[in-house]
Amino acid sequence: MRISELGRTCEVPVATIKFYIREGLLPAGELSHPNQASYSDEHVRRLRLIRALIDVGGLSVSSAQEVIGAIDSDLPIANVFEIAQHTVSSTLGEFDAEPSGLERVDQLLLGWHFTPSNPGRLAAARVIGTFEAAGQSADRGWYARYAAVALLAAEADLDEIETRPDRLAQAETVVVGTVLGDLLFAALRRVAQEHVTSLRFGSEPTTSEIARDES
Amino acid sequence: MRISELGRTCEVPVATIKFYIREGLLPAGELSHPNQASYSDEHVRRLRLIRALIDVGGLSVSSAQEVIGAIDSDLPIANVFEIAQHTVSSTLGEFDAEPSGLERVDQLLLGWHFTPSNPGRLAAARVIGTFEAAGQSADRGWYARYAAVALLAAEADLDEIETRPDRLAQAETVVVGTVLGDLLFAALRRVAQEHVTSLRFGSEPTTSEIARDES
Repeated sequence: MRISELGRTCEVPVATIKFYIREGLLPAGELSHPNQASYSDEHVRRLRLIRALIDVGGLSVSSAQEVIGAIDSDLPIANVFEIAQHTVSSTLGEFDAEPSGLERVDQLLLGWHFTPSNPGRLAAARVIGTFEAAGQSADRGWYARYAAVALLAAEADLDEIETRPDRLAQAETVVVGTVLGDLLFAALRRVAQEHVTSLRFGSEPTTSEIARDES
Repeated sequence: MRISELGRTCEVPVATIKFYIREGLLPAGELSHPNQASYSDEHVRRLRLIRALIDVGGLSVSSAQEVIGAIDSDLPIANVFEIAQHTVSSTLGEFDAEPSGLERVDQLLLGWHFTPSNPGRLAAARVIGTFEAAGQSADRGWYARYAAVALLAAEADLDEIETRPDRLAQAETVVVGTVLGDLLFAALRRVAQEHVTSLRFGSEPTTSEIARDES
């Protein structure tokens, strides 16, 4: 197909497609005539992946370059994971975890296999430190329960990855799943909070209902 | 204590404290002399809460104003939750969920009690739509498993909230927990992914180890 059809199919402006090609995110089309390039279903798939990472996942163009480079490399899946994790950890904020916070995280995750530089380890130490500095405590095991929940999610992640037919498909799922999994959990937790709150605290009218009543 | 001591205690510049007072995030100190205000432990607690929301949680000043307004109101906890959820859902991205996506989310969460305007419902529809547009599928029940995981997290959230002694402390935990819970999960999932990957795919040397070997 021509670039205009690729753009219509993926709902991406042609100028944006050309930008992605210049930035090395998308391979150039195959020259079918001296000044006309042809694009395949592979381009459609890759373009949709790029949009998922940038538009919904919120990655910068340079972060998208890094993770797409990892997909297209021949690195083992474990390393693609590592690159995806480091690249998207900008969403976890800056890390200035204190040693005592790191010790606590290591204690919490005793028996797990991970490298000291895992960005999640550093971010978890910072989040727990911030939570407690704000006067909060985890009296009912909030941290440990979130660790258990994160382990279940990671098992679900890896189960999906294992169904993929080849290394390329696995690497794509690693990258997309790492980026979108955070958002999926955050979204579903909000619905679950409303559900559990209504079960425990009764069904107080919501502010939107109050607004409706008053209008 | 004086404002300078408040600043030292919380590691916040005095100019920033004055800005928070002007913006209504922090109550003014009590005037002990005509031109000297006195600050209490309540100010320390509130200032640390503000820093957790803005510095680590990434909220804007106006978002922090909204959720702190909800804490200081006499709204029922369910409504504080609703405000906290709507305020921090900017981290979930823009919502333009399609009706078919919303139907799928409702089917996925059948039996849960939630309002159609729950921001998580809209965001989940968008994330699932994006995941599939990027050529991905959930062959091993990824969505349903994340829903189960989100429900466990929400139970843990509400269990913590119930231990708090009064409405103010509950409302603070709702707000801080909503903001930091997303980050805690995202952080711990990264560690869990490395753990589960190493169990399943063996312990390939990580790229950081390769870099060390080559240096």
